[in-house]
Amino acid sequence: MAPPPAKATGKQAKKPPVVPLNNGISVTKEANFSQWYQEVVTKCELVEYYTEVGSAYTDELFSKASSMHIWNTIRTWFQNRIEQMGVEETSFPMFLSAKSLEKEKEHVEGFAPELAWVTRAGDKDLEVPVAVRPTSEAVMYPYYAKWIRSHRDLPFRLNQWNSVVRWETKQTTPFLRSREFMWQEGHTAHLTEQLAEKEVLEILELYAGVYEQLLAVPVVRGKYVVAFSRFVPILIWVSLTYPDLAIGRQKTKNSPADIGHRRVKDLSRLQDAVYKEQLLISFPSALGQNFSKMFDITVEDPNQKGEKIFVWQNSWGLSTRVIGVMVMIHSDNKGLVLPPRVSKFQVVIIPVGLTAKTTDEVRENLAKQVQDLAGSLKEIQVRTEVDNREGYTPGFKFADWEMKGVPLRLEFGPKDAANSVVTYSRRDTGFKGTIPLAEVASQVPALLEKIQQDMYDKANEDFTSHRLIINDWTEVIPALNARNVVVIPFCGEPSCEELIKEKTKSDEHRELGPDGKPQPSMGMKSLCIPFDQPSGLVQGETKCLNPECGKFAKSWVMFGRSY
Amino acid sequence: MAPPPAKATGKQAKKPPVVPLNNGISVTKEANFSQWYQEVVTKCELVEYYTEVGSAYTDELFSKASSMHIWNTIRTWFQNRIEQMGVEETSFPMFLSAKSLEKEKEHVEGFAPELAWVTRAGDKDLEVPVAVRPTSEAVMYPYYAKWIRSHRDLPFRLNQWNSVVRWETKQTTPFLRSREFMWQEGHTAHLTEQLAEKEVLEILELYAGVYEQLLAVPVVRGKYVVAFSRFVPILIWVSLTYPDLAIGRQKTKNSPADIGHRRVKDLSRLQDAVYKEQLLISFPSALGQNFSKMFDITVEDPNQKGEKIFVWQNSWGLSTRVIGVMVMIHSDNKGLVLPPRVSKFQVVIIPVGLTAKTTDEVRENLAKQVQDLAGSLKEIQVRTEVDNREGYTPGFKFADWEMKGVPLRLEFGPKDAANSVVTYSRRDTGFKGTIPLAEVASQVPALLEKIQQDMYDKANEDFTSHRLIINDWTEVIPALNARNVVVIPFCGEPSCEELIKEKTKSDEHRELGPDGKPQPSMGMKSLCIPFDQPSGLVQGETKCLNPECGKFAKSWVMFGRSY
Repeated sequence: MAPPPAKATGKQAKKPPVVPLNNGISVTKEANFSQWYQEVVTKCELVEYYTEVGSAYTDELFSKASSMHIWNTIRTWFQNRIEQMGVEETSFPMFLSAKSLEKEKEHVEGFAPELAWVTRAGDKDLEVPVAVRPTSEAVMYPYYAKWIRSHRDLPFRLNQWNSVVRWETKQTTPFLRSREFMWQEGHTAHLTEQLAEKEVLEILELYAGVYEQLLAVPVVRGKYVVAFSRFVPILIWVSLTYPDLAIGRQKTKNSPADIGHRRVKDLSRLQDAVYKEQLLISFPSALGQNFSKMFDITVEDPNQKGEKIFVWQNSWGLSTRVIGVMVMIHSDNKGLVLPPRVSKFQVVIIPVGLTAKTTDEVRENLAKQVQDLAGSLKEIQVRTEVDNREGYTPGFKFADWEMKGVPLRLEFGPKDAANSVVTYSRRDTGFKGTIPLAEVASQVPALLEKIQQDMYDKANEDFTSHRLIINDWTEVIPALNARNVVVIPFCGEPSCEELIKEKTKSDEHRELGPDGKPQPSMGMKSLCIPFDQPSGLVQGETKCLNPECGKFAKSWVMFGRSY
Repeated sequence: MAPPPAKATGKQAKKPPVVPLNNGISVTKEANFSQWYQEVVTKCELVEYYTEVGSAYTDELFSKASSMHIWNTIRTWFQNRIEQMGVEETSFPMFLSAKSLEKEKEHVEGFAPELAWVTRAGDKDLEVPVAVRPTSEAVMYPYYAKWIRSHRDLPFRLNQWNSVVRWETKQTTPFLRSREFMWQEGHTAHLTEQLAEKEVLEILELYAGVYEQLLAVPVVRGKYVVAFSRFVPILIWVSLTYPDLAIGRQKTKNSPADIGHRRVKDLSRLQDAVYKEQLLISFPSALGQNFSKMFDITVEDPNQKGEKIFVWQNSWGLSTRVIGVMVMIHSDNKGLVLPPRVSKFQVVIIPVGLTAKTTDEVRENLAKQVQDLAGSLKEIQVRTEVDNREGYTPGFKFADWEMKGVPLRLEFGPKDAANSVVTYSRRDTGFKGTIPLAEVASQVPALLEKIQQDMYDKANEDFTSHRLIINDWTEVIPALNARNVVVIPFCGEPSCEELIKEKTKSDEHRELGPDGKPQPSMGMKSLCIPFDQPSGLVQGETKCLNPECGKFAKSWVMFGRSY
């Protein structure tokens, strides 16, 4: 919660702090990324652990307005844009029955272990139990079959913002792995594969925009290696340069066999999988005709009377997981670092320089000037908070707001007042300076935009410098050991990828596992075929980098180690 | 879904309609209100009945963007205002355990029959089953006890937008009684009873604003009769002048004994109860200290060191039920009538006057002019739709969009083009006229605002004319038989109210029950003490209108019959 509002007059007996003293983060990001992450999201008041009285049920709880603000900013940004595209909003119920799940065995098979079953209402058992949706294909598509009656109804595009439940048996991790999580799920139907693919690319760009423009997180757009020769699901990759963050292991393989399956489960599994390779992903998924055939969603071919066409479908979802990515990328050992565009408070003003000797008059003048300062910033839509809490030293407040990640701190005391300036301190760099009071309204918004840009640039430099274009096989393993991802010429054969995986395992360079204990490094796997291809690869000439392969390379492919 | 976009050229062989022909509403609002309502909400594409494959589970489904648009308009309007008040947004999980429910027996007792229990995850039984929230007191308040540590943390105010589940065993009715429904639930804590009551009044005004300013539904603000002598929960009353709409009977009594209980259950029960008296209610609920004592939510008394104060709490919720009220008040035998401020499409443009003889040139010119017309309206944020569907007559389209309730229809054909006017038709009154093309941008927005106002005025007149101020007991029963609510001087004694209820039953005037069969009219019950009191009641002089009472009247009280 925000601190209580200012008292009319500042002078009061000092009281002991009533909130816990700022205890900071007990481990460094470098030393123990996992624990650091857990502490940051909880101590910095993004989430609270929710434990049900006397129940094994625990999950995350968006207790704090700051995380809701981030999610709502993303929601508004994305919603406006898909509305422009003509996607309509809908709301389907949260329950589905075993029977409707059976419709697509493959789908349910994937989720079965995680389904939360309602078997009883009041004290009566239900004849047919219903499950809480893990995702809504099985809920929505029977109605798509009913509503889509003609090619004139296409494209048919609905999106809903809701929460879904996947009953994780493993320990949950806020944002990254929770039993209930908020997301948007878009489900669209198109007349042709081309139209469906076009939309996938549009949505990809919107997801990239969420990462890049709002969360200041750089991404790599690319396509799926197994999809070399077939319809391409498109991926976004976000590099995390701290491989110690490994929670469990990847369950699904990157084999063409199960990609259809993984498409269905889009976000959850695939993100998990890739997340566990210390990379995050957003995945507008091209379902092709899998579901339209399962649910018999057809229209008459406009060009061939009497011929029916199974519609081409996409599903795409973006979850609160992206907030976890943002935290991992930007936050530091002092706590959260929030990009100004998504931060609930962009500026916190902290009165300083008051002592027991300070006269009432000075106190009152300062209090008034602080209120004026805050007022002038709020007037120009700068989200501003004044910390007038009593019984706290400025030092405590500085650390407290640094921990909470507010991008810009303004300090204002008698000295500043005398010089008619305000002192500022950037959360991202710690850089301090002063701004003339007269220029606050012009300089603060500019400074906030600069912070947003600088945060992106820093993360991008980080990512780029850990993404090495390599032409010489001998450089691959050293590069991986130095915690990079590599971009190499690759033939695209699954068998060759298996070989590469074997060759790049390492016992010497031992990574820390989830238990914090060192364990052998996994081999590297193909991540994606970046749209943005480096130069120098000649078709029918450049060979696959795997020395044992000998085939020609199809394209530059990004590989990374599993952790 | 909206019709597909315009084709480049209009000329094509007529095809048979691919959507069902406009079948309209099969009963009149006057003859069978219940069935009329069910048909309007489904045939006019506000909701779809959702039936789970092979399951007894059925519920409403916000299939259509139009109902989502209404709800999102309300959501944005209300959210902006509570943010101004300093209420913060939160998101608590959807599950709670039996154990945490036991914390407040009274609460769970009320919901127990309607709780949906998750007893199994995957194929494993849960040690402790969890229920899907019917409301979130039991989920949230343990955290209130944890987070509220000082009077400085007060007021502590959180709101969440979510959906809750109450497993109705009875038949569900879209918007009015569904198993899962969307709402907002605000939960706040205050230092004093006065501060809590002040907030209740602020929220009441916001709820009134939703009804009056957005849904064009007049309301009566008032307080609860049983609360004459105690803390007053505040009510809003919406009169429905069609008593045939009776679905079941009221379960809870208006007795002081269970008002605390009813407060807890706020909306659902109480709205149901009153709804069944063919009146709707929104109910910012003053919980007093019930819950703070249950959950031990305390702060130290700022004025008495060491003394602890149980905080004063409110909870307030507004659900999608308000959409049902809007439908009942405004819609007619042609279908929906939507107030312009909440209608997804405010204007529909329908090309007319095209025949087989019409030349390509004329078609193309007309198509272009229609697009320009639409463009100029969209430019000034008028939500505009063009119906270029082929294979439909203008007559079909007129009826179709009338059924869907679009406030304003613009017809444009060669004749209109020749006179450079556009013909319009109001959905609410059916009034037709023309607007010079040059003045469309100025006249259409004004016309839409006029429609909004006229709809409110009509409903208000209706409501007022059915609310009779009565000073003579002999006029009461005739007034009730004529389907009015009455405002009479009343002593406020529950015993007297019971008497009044008996005296106003009637076997002669038989009302239609839910089964459509006539049944004796129930006696009247106290509805509220309107804040806006008629004149002429003198304390200690004016008697209670019940001739067998003889006590002095405390105030004017609104009574209505149950149906």
